[in-house]
Amino acid sequence: MAREEFRFWHRLRVRWAEADMQGIVFNGHYLTYFDVAFTEYWRATGLEGPLLQAQSGFEMFARKSTIEYHAPARFDDQLDIGVRLERVGNSSLCFRIEIHREDPASQDIMHLVSGELVYVYAHVASRSAAPVPEHWRRILTGFESAAQQT
Amino acid sequence: MAREEFRFWHRLRVRWAEADMQGIVFNGHYLTYFDVAFTEYWRATGLEGPLLQAQSGFEMFARKSTIEYHAPARFDDQLDIGVRLERVGNSSLCFRIEIHREDPASQDIMHLVSGELVYVYAHVASRSAAPVPEHWRRILTGFESAAQQT
Amino acid sequence: MAREEFRFWHRLRVRWAEADMQGIVFNGHYLTYFDVAFTEYWRATGLEGPLLQAQSGFEMFARKSTIEYHAPARFDDQLDIGVRLERVGNSSLCFRIEIHREDPASQDIMHLVSGELVYVYAHVASRSAAPVPEHWRRILTGFESAAQQT
Amino acid sequence: MAREEFRFWHRLRVRWAEADMQGIVFNGHYLTYFDVAFTEYWRATGLEGPLLQAQSGFEMFARKSTIEYHAPARFDDQLDIGVRLERVGNSSLCFRIEIHREDPASQDIMHLVSGELVYVYAHVASRSAAPVPEHWRRILTGFESAAQQT
Repeated sequence: MAREEFRFWHRLRVRWAEADMQGIVFNGHYLTYFDVAFTEYWRATGLEGPLLQAQSGFEMFARKSTIEYHAPARFDDQLDIGVRLERVGNSSLCFRIEIHREDPASQDIMHLVSGELVYVYAHVASRSAAPVPEHWRRILTGFESAAQQT
Repeated sequence: MAREEFRFWHRLRVRWAEADMQGIVFNGHYLTYFDVAFTEYWRATGLEGPLLQAQSGFEMFARKSTIEYHAPARFDDQLDIGVRLERVGNSSLCFRIEIHREDPASQDIMHLVSGELVYVYAHVASRSAAPVPEHWRRILTGFESAAQQT
Repeated sequence: MAREEFRFWHRLRVRWAEADMQGIVFNGHYLTYFDVAFTEYWRATGLEGPLLQAQSGFEMFARKSTIEYHAPARFDDQLDIGVRLERVGNSSLCFRIEIHREDPASQDIMHLVSGELVYVYAHVASRSAAPVPEHWRRILTGFESAAQQT
Repeated sequence: MAREEFRFWHRLRVRWAEADMQGIVFNGHYLTYFDVAFTEYWRATGLEGPLLQAQSGFEMFARKSTIEYHAPARFDDQLDIGVRLERVGNSSLCFRIEIHREDPASQDIMHLVSGELVYVYAHVASRSAAPVPEHWRRILTGFESAAQQT
């Protein structure tokens, strides 16, 4: 997927403790990377973060994660993680994630990992689904469409 | 899915460090749980483990992971993780994973998480796909069919 | 230290994700192992666990950890983790931890890691130290002295 | 300890997955933070990193870690991690680490965590100690003394 199709990118560096005996990032850590980038994406939109959400009595719960591994990330790699809102349902939000790496020598962009995260907006105590708030819908859509115009 | 549909179960207990501020297991840790159970499944089949595989010049690489979160696991929960071979392709192996929890009071079984892991058998250096060895095919299929007869 | 000097041992197996590119357990994971064994030690004494403690308004906070690495643990190793109360102060508790590994071939016991964990019993909100409850003192001391008599 | 006593600082942000049910960073993660900052410290000196070291047949192995917890770090905190060479022995290197946090409102600096890391320079295969190379000694000492003159 072309780099321009994501408005938001977050950069992080692979930690020593995240590479396994094969010399590559253990696959569970990609969900942590997704989450780190997602936190920064959310901050960039200006919406209230998870701690404030919980106080409101509603939270986003992870419903499904999909990860496809195209090529491995390695210790000390600098990774660029793109996050994009894919669709908003009545009570669900679906995000597309991609992890890219720029080859330091050739400056080619390699696409290492693709992911999809589905969250459900729900009542904290009962975990029953609730409609995504109108202002979330407006702000997220606005954030993404600003991207397309750039 | 019925418990009998899995021949292999591995039990583990949720660690303190694995529960987040919501009091539930952070979703990235489920891939670690899958991996722990998968290691034990593999040991149970009698096939050579990852270290011996690497010496042979071929390894299984993760190609895709899917996780569906039905209900959360919490600190100190005892989880039962079922692993089953779903299908073997020419160079790919697909496994089904389920995480269950027995309610200590009612002894009801709750199905918390479902997953699918796709691996590709490949040459270590080139990462190019190679046919799944015949003895793997035979041993894995035998292991699974023994389950059905029990 | 002789094996008999610990009443309590917990066994766990090193996970794939915990071994680094050197093929050895990343040092941060030893604190997780200590914590896992400590949770089981605490359960064995019969004292109330961290969730119930928090409800009482008081918790144990980690104050200091020391880890000495004598020899590395590796993927798939079975580790035996000994926990022992070393001393109880007015508001502090100090525990000694050792990680041993039995060589599968020779059955020699190798002493891989030593640790010391200092906790402070404190008020949850203010984090100000409070006296260790009398029944903790009695039960912990009883638990340890039972060990010596065995 | 005064901020000026460290030449090198690395900033990182606490991840969601690193905060526990008490809402504070699980203590094992501080060793990961130390390691991340240490990797960046090492890069700043210009010395060869762990992968090149391994090729030379010699590596630094962790020998002892000490962590003191003064106050907790929390989810989303930005932490500043100072690293300083404390002393070089014949085959050992001792580093002092501090984790600080600037209060966003008052801009006061809070000192959250102190640590000490002792490494031994050793032959990879035999793990027997070897003298710290002369150019390491010169470059590390130069890097630190440049700090004092600034």
